[in-house]
Amino acid sequence: MSPTPATPRVERIPAGEGAIWVGEGLLRDASRYLVSPSGRFLLVSPASARSASDPIRKALGSAVLLDFEIEDGEAAKSLANVEKISEAALAAGLRRDDAFVAVGGGVATDVTGFAAAILLRGVAWNAVPTTTAGMADAAIGGKTAVNHPRGKNLLGAFHPPRAVLSDPVCLATLPDRDYRAGLVEAYKAAWVADPELSSRASESLSAVLERDGAALVALLAGAARVKIGIVETDPRDAGRRHLLNFGHTLGHALEGAVPWGTLRHGEAVAWGIAAALEISKRRAGLSEQDAAAIRRTLSRLGPFPQPERDPKKLAPLLALDKKATAAGTAGVLLEEIGRARVEPSVPIPEWLDAAAIMSLS
Amino acid sequence: MSPTPATPRVERIPAGEGAIWVGEGLLRDASRYLVSPSGRFLLVSPASARSASDPIRKALGSAVLLDFEIEDGEAAKSLANVEKISEAALAAGLRRDDAFVAVGGGVATDVTGFAAAILLRGVAWNAVPTTTAGMADAAIGGKTAVNHPRGKNLLGAFHPPRAVLSDPVCLATLPDRDYRAGLVEAYKAAWVADPELSSRASESLSAVLERDGAALVALLAGAARVKIGIVETDPRDAGRRHLLNFGHTLGHALEGAVPWGTLRHGEAVAWGIAAALEISKRRAGLSEQDAAAIRRTLSRLGPFPQPERDPKKLAPLLALDKKATAAGTAGVLLEEIGRARVEPSVPIPEWLDAAAIMSLS
Repeated sequence: MSPTPATPRVERIPAGEGAIWVGEGLLRDASRYLVSPSGRFLLVSPASARSASDPIRKALGSAVLLDFEIEDGEAAKSLANVEKISEAALAAGLRRDDAFVAVGGGVATDVTGFAAAILLRGVAWNAVPTTTAGMADAAIGGKTAVNHPRGKNLLGAFHPPRAVLSDPVCLATLPDRDYRAGLVEAYKAAWVADPELSSRASESLSAVLERDGAALVALLAGAARVKIGIVETDPRDAGRRHLLNFGHTLGHALEGAVPWGTLRHGEAVAWGIAAALEISKRRAGLSEQDAAAIRRTLSRLGPFPQPERDPKKLAPLLALDKKATAAGTAGVLLEEIGRARVEPSVPIPEWLDAAAIMSLS
Repeated sequence: MSPTPATPRVERIPAGEGAIWVGEGLLRDASRYLVSPSGRFLLVSPASARSASDPIRKALGSAVLLDFEIEDGEAAKSLANVEKISEAALAAGLRRDDAFVAVGGGVATDVTGFAAAILLRGVAWNAVPTTTAGMADAAIGGKTAVNHPRGKNLLGAFHPPRAVLSDPVCLATLPDRDYRAGLVEAYKAAWVADPELSSRASESLSAVLERDGAALVALLAGAARVKIGIVETDPRDAGRRHLLNFGHTLGHALEGAVPWGTLRHGEAVAWGIAAALEISKRRAGLSEQDAAAIRRTLSRLGPFPQPERDPKKLAPLLALDKKATAAGTAGVLLEEIGRARVEPSVPIPEWLDAAAIMSLS
């Protein structure tokens, strides 16, 4: 007899009324995990995600009521595309008990989740992220949104998916730069709230960078568990959820200081974390040893492109931050690896100083 | 000394995190009742509601961050207008702790409430309805929506206002036909759930038709209390809330069978109630005495235009109902005045028979 292949581990993280599933081979069994009260599904996916959407098409078969191809790229994250999805869904005969399945990167999941939030005042949806950024962050926590000419994510809703399926097989064709940048959010989740995950994730970094399935599943499941744990204490982003913005205050400014797409979101966050480490050492008692350990991990996730450091360019962007006041801009500071807090107001010159000296080595 | 004028009664109905205020003279004191976490307000109102919006402008003074004029009429209940409001609000510097104030009919409150629901993933809003339909129904219960070319209210959100101000003074210029049609929803609320309110509302009908302030306040406050009581047991419209659809199954079909606006919504609901009374007598044990009492009230609220009764026109519209199945269409039946239940499936021929014989006298 030939040996039975080992069953890959599947992790289930309960999330509100739904669940996040992380594991190798989930896609083949998608019909076991995807949720639709009526049993009917509306698939939304870009052509580029075909290697992930095809197994789902096959698994769902005739339960697919609509197979909608969405454009790719940040420009597609628009109210116009929500309208296109709405029109197609209503034309297909959408009912309140049907469910969407978004397969793709953050654009596909954000736009589809928002369409699901407002169609018939809310129908169920499922997310199948195909990027590390999606699996570590974008598809988890219930935030959906589209961009507005005046800024990113300005129109949206809190509408958690009923199921998230994160299958490392989807990452097979993800370019290395995107693969690595997306992982920054997974490590970030560990650093702000889970010292043990931080330590396990450091140890498995080499395996993760080699795209080892088991190591990735452990990291992504751990990060999802941290994020859901935080989100469920603060679903509407009014307090503790801000911890997940570690690295994002300066990160958003760095991302906005260069033409869109020059820096990946995760890369900007990596630099933002490097700056927050400097401020954390001064204001939150973070040890240089902990800061150095994080910088080491970030530098191995990189190398990341050098960001804009010109204070004249960064200052106005920091002042535009949603949480900015006359006294400064809120930031998340690390006290030690696994414990963070929100600092309501860090003066802009401190951010600029940190941007000048931050380093990833 | 001159006598102190009697202070008109102000009713406060707690509603989730907010409240519904019903009373004469509320508008003058709008700044006492309208809620904004930041203290800043974005006013949205059609030019036709100026007699109601002007006192609010005056009461709020420099706290008005944006004064946006929205178009009037059902065509304005569009995603395009949500975009216009969003653009104006973001241009004015909208922050998460600001609040909208919608002053006007159901179009103004529905569109503004929906914009508030999705801007920055949700900001607070207040409703100042200027029609009986708005005060009795549209502004209460948290449903916001816009129309889609494929149907009414197909895009929307559950996003209750923090305060609703219903001041009879707003009704001074409302045409009599709209005034009367809107009241159908107030009586409907009494009939499905509150026998005592039903009886008081019958007694005060003459005063209400003469626009007596105190009688109106008592009726509208009672109807709001019934609606909020039902909504809070079923905010997402999954069960008990359907009771509020008494008269709406056939009503929607009657409304859709003629050019838009030919029948007021409340008029269509009045006929729908007349039909539901016939079915209720057969299926739910409603006495002819109770049915006759309701018909008497409806005929005094009218006269309402004769509706379309052609089964060939009504049957396809009934089959399109959101709650339709192969076996029939759900309806709300009255067991006696003040007690209703949902009948999951009434065969379409029964609706058509009831439409053929329904009467309002």
